Amino acid sequence: MTKTIGIALLGSGIVGEGVLNILATQADRIADRYGLRFEVKHVVVRDVSKPRKFAANVSTDAEAAIDDPAVDVVVELIGGTTRSGELVERALKLGKPVVTANKSLLAARGAELFALARKHNTCIAFEASCGGGVPIVDALLRSLVANDVRALVGIVNGTCNYILTRMTVAGLPYADALKEAQAAGFAEADPTLDVSGRDAAQKLALLAGLAFGAKFAESDILIEGIDTLDARDIGMAKELGYVIKLLAIAMRDEATKAVSLRVHPTLVHADDVLADVAGSFNAISVWGHALGHALFYGRGAGSTPTASAVVGDLVAVGTGACAATFAHSRVFPDTARPVTLLPREEIRSRYYLRLTARDWPGTMARVTEILGRRKISLSAVLQHETLDAAGFVPIVITTHAAREGDIREALAELNALDVVGAPTACLRIIDQPKEFAD
Amino acid sequence: MTKTIGIALLGSGIVGEGVLNILATQADRIADRYGLRFEVKHVVVRDVSKPRKFAANVSTDAEAAIDDPAVDVVVELIGGTTRSGELVERALKLGKPVVTANKSLLAARGAELFALARKHNTCIAFEASCGGGVPIVDALLRSLVANDVRALVGIVNGTCNYILTRMTVAGLPYADALKEAQAAGFAEADPTLDVSGRDAAQKLALLAGLAFGAKFAESDILIEGIDTLDARDIGMAKELGYVIKLLAIAMRDEATKAVSLRVHPTLVHADDVLADVAGSFNAISVWGHALGHALFYGRGAGSTPTASAVVGDLVAVGTGACAATFAHSRVFPDTARPVTLLPREEIRSRYYLRLTARDWPGTMARVTEILGRRKISLSAVLQHETLDAAGFVPIVITTHAAREGDIREALAELNALDVVGAPTACLRIIDQPKEFAD
Repeated sequence: MTKTIGIALLGSGIVGEGVLNILATQADRIADRYGLRFEVKHVVVRDVSKPRKFAANVSTDAEAAIDDPAVDVVVELIGGTTRSGELVERALKLGKPVVTANKSLLAARGAELFALARKHNTCIAFEASCGGGVPIVDALLRSLVANDVRALVGIVNGTCNYILTRMTVAGLPYADALKEAQAAGFAEADPTLDVSGRDAAQKLALLAGLAFGAKFAESDILIEGIDTLDARDIGMAKELGYVIKLLAIAMRDEATKAVSLRVHPTLVHADDVLADVAGSFNAISVWGHALGHALFYGRGAGSTPTASAVVGDLVAVGTGACAATFAHSRVFPDTARPVTLLPREEIRSRYYLRLTARDWPGTMARVTEILGRRKISLSAVLQHETLDAAGFVPIVITTHAAREGDIREALAELNALDVVGAPTACLRIIDQPKEFAD
Repeated sequence: MTKTIGIALLGSGIVGEGVLNILATQADRIADRYGLRFEVKHVVVRDVSKPRKFAANVSTDAEAAIDDPAVDVVVELIGGTTRSGELVERALKLGKPVVTANKSLLAARGAELFALARKHNTCIAFEASCGGGVPIVDALLRSLVANDVRALVGIVNGTCNYILTRMTVAGLPYADALKEAQAAGFAEADPTLDVSGRDAAQKLALLAGLAFGAKFAESDILIEGIDTLDARDIGMAKELGYVIKLLAIAMRDEATKAVSLRVHPTLVHADDVLADVAGSFNAISVWGHALGHALFYGRGAGSTPTASAVVGDLVAVGTGACAATFAHSRVFPDTARPVTLLPREEIRSRYYLRLTARDWPGTMARVTEILGRRKISLSAVLQHETLDAAGFVPIVITTHAAREGDIREALAELNALDVVGAPTACLRIIDQPKEFAD
C-alpha cells in the first residue's frame, strides 16, 4: 500500500540538488518506512544546458510542469517573490500542495497565499524556510501548542553567524570575514539580504507568527545588521565576558501582552548556550509557559540540511499530516489574530555603549549625568589607558535594563558633547534565564 | 468550526495535574488557535477523597470512563504495565485514540498495542513518554524522516542527571545526592527504575525504534546505572577534562549496518554541549545523513513540561495529524523491520579505567602489557603520589577506541593481578563529532 506522489521541483540550485539527492538515495527507505514513493516528474531550471548531477526530466517550462496531471505536489525553490509567487499561486489554484523554502515570499505575501491554499482545499509546507534543517516550524505548529509562548530567541542566519564567528575567533575585520564567507560558499555575491538582518527578520516574522498566533510584517521589526559592526566591539565584548551574535528576538510583555520583535547584533554571555553556536549552525530557544526553556539546534543552511526539511515536508504532505494541521490551525498569516506591538521606544534591554571621548577631567561625570538623568543605571565601565592619535579614548559602559527611547535620547545628547569625538557605538545585551541548571 | 473532544484522564499524579492545569488555563487559546475544545469528562483516580486542585468529574471507575460515549480520547498516566495495559487495550478496542506517557508499557507491550490500535483504525500518541517536554518523538516521526539516522545520543533521565549534577557540582557521594533528589521531588521513594538505567533504556528502545525503523526490546540494550558510580571517578574525570553523564546511545555501524544500543555513565568532554545539560534537563542529539548534527533540549521531567507533551499530542489527535502519521509510518513496534544488533563484545568505545594498584616497580609494565596484548592503546595515564592506608594508589588510564570484548578480558586479567587490590572501575568515554563549529 505504497502511495506514489508526483513532484515538480521548481529551481535546482544548491537546495534543489540536495532534494534530488535525498529522493534518489532514500527512495526505498522512505517507501518502506513511510509508505510513500516520490517521483520527480519535472525539474524546472533556467538553463537546461548546464551540466547536472541529477539530469532527468529537466525543462524550463514551469507552467507545464505545474499543470501536468502527474504532478501532485509542487516544490518551490526559486527564491525571490515575483516569479515564485506566480508559480505558487498557479499550483495552489490547481489544489496542489506547495512545499517551499522561500521565507521572503511568505513574509511578503503569506496572508494571500495561505488564504488561496485554504480556498482550494490544499496546504503550504514551509519547514525549510526557517532554520535550515532545524525543525522549528514543526515544533511551533505541533509539539509546543500547549504553550503560551513568552519568548523566542534565535540565531537564524547562518551567513551572519559564520561571519561573526570568524571575526570573533580569527579577529578578522568585517570586510575580510565577509570575503572569507563568500569564498566558503556561506555568503552570496550580494550579501545584503543576509548581513543587513533582513533575512533573519523575515524568518522572525514567520516564526513569531506561529508562536504568538499573529500576523507580523517585516516592517514590525526593529532591524540592525552586522554590516556596520566594528571589530573593536567584538574584542571589548570578549573582555566583558560576552560574545556578539545576530539574534532574532520575539518577546511578549506579560503585563501588557504586547509583543516586541527585533533583529540585531547582541552581546550574549560567554556561558550562554547560544554563545557556542558557531559557523553556519542555527539555534532557536523557545520559552513556553508550560515547557519552560527548550532549544532546537542544527545546521541552518547548506544543501542537504535544508533539503532534509523539504523532504520532511513532502512526507508530511504525503501522509496527510500537513493538510490536517493546516486545516485546523489558525496561526497562519491568513487566519492569525491581531496582536499589539510594543512601541519600539518602549522595548527594554540592557545596553553596551562605546564612547570615543577625550580623556579630560569631568568627562565621565558629564557622561554619567546624561545617563542618570534618564534613570539609565550603569552595570560596568571599562576604560583603558590608551589614547588614540587624535587624543580620544574608548569608554565602554554596560547598563542595566533601560528603555530604548531613553537610550536613543541619551545617545543624541552624548554624541553632541564636545568631549565625544565619534558617534557612540550602541549594542544590546541579552540576559537569558539561566535555565541550563534547575 | 471548533471541534469538541471529550477526554478521560486515567491517573492524576503530578503529570495529570499539569494536563488539567493546561487544559483549564489554555482552553480558549487552544480553541481559538487550533479549532479544538477539550472537555475533561472523567478524571480517574485511586482515592477520590484526596484533596485536588482540579476536582471536577473525579471517579475511580476507569472502565466506565473509557466506555462513556462522550469520551473521544483516553489519556493514560497511570504508569506500570498491568492495569495501564488493560485500560489502554480497552480504549483501543473501542477505536478510541490513546495518549500516553508510559514508556514502560510501550517498551514491554508496544508491538501488541500498536497492532491493536491499527486493527481498530485508531492511534497511540506518546510524545510524553520520552524526554518530557522535549519534542523528540515528533522530530523522529516527522521532521527528520528524510534522514538515514547514524546515531542518537541523549540525556533522557532527569533523575540521574540531577543526581550526577549534584555529585559533580557539590561533590556529594551518590547516596547523599540521591537523598537530595528525593527531597527535591526529582527521585521516587524507590528510585531503582531510574538509577539502574532501566528507565533510560526503555526510552532508548522507543527512540531508537523510531530512528532506525526497527523494533528493540529493553534486553537488546547494554545497561549500567549510576547506582554503582564512585564519586572518586567524577573527580578524576574532571581532572581529565570530562563530566560524567548517564547517556543513552544508539549507533549504526556504517560497514555492517548493525545497531548498538547502550545506557551507561559516560565521560563527556567538558566542552561538549551535553556536559552543560544540568539538573533535570534532557538533551538528545541526532546525527542524520542529510541533516548532520541536530540537538533537542528542554525539561525532561516535571508537571507542566511533560503535560506540555501530552496536550501537544491531544491537539495532534484532534486535528487528525496523529492518525495520518500513524497510518502511514512503518516505524512503530508492530510494523518496524528487523535489524541486526551488533554483538555487545563488538561495541567499540574509548574507555576510562581506574585501577587500585600497589605502587611497586613493574606494576605499570604488567598493566600496560595486558592492555597492549589486546591492542588496547593508551590515551592518557594519571597517577597521583598518594598511597591509601592499605598501600594502594589509584591509576587512571584512558584508552583509544577498543572492543568491549577485549576490555572485558583485560579487566578480568587485571583484577587477577596480585598488585591489584580492588576491582578496576571501568567507564566509557564518548567523543562526539565536533560539530558546534563548521
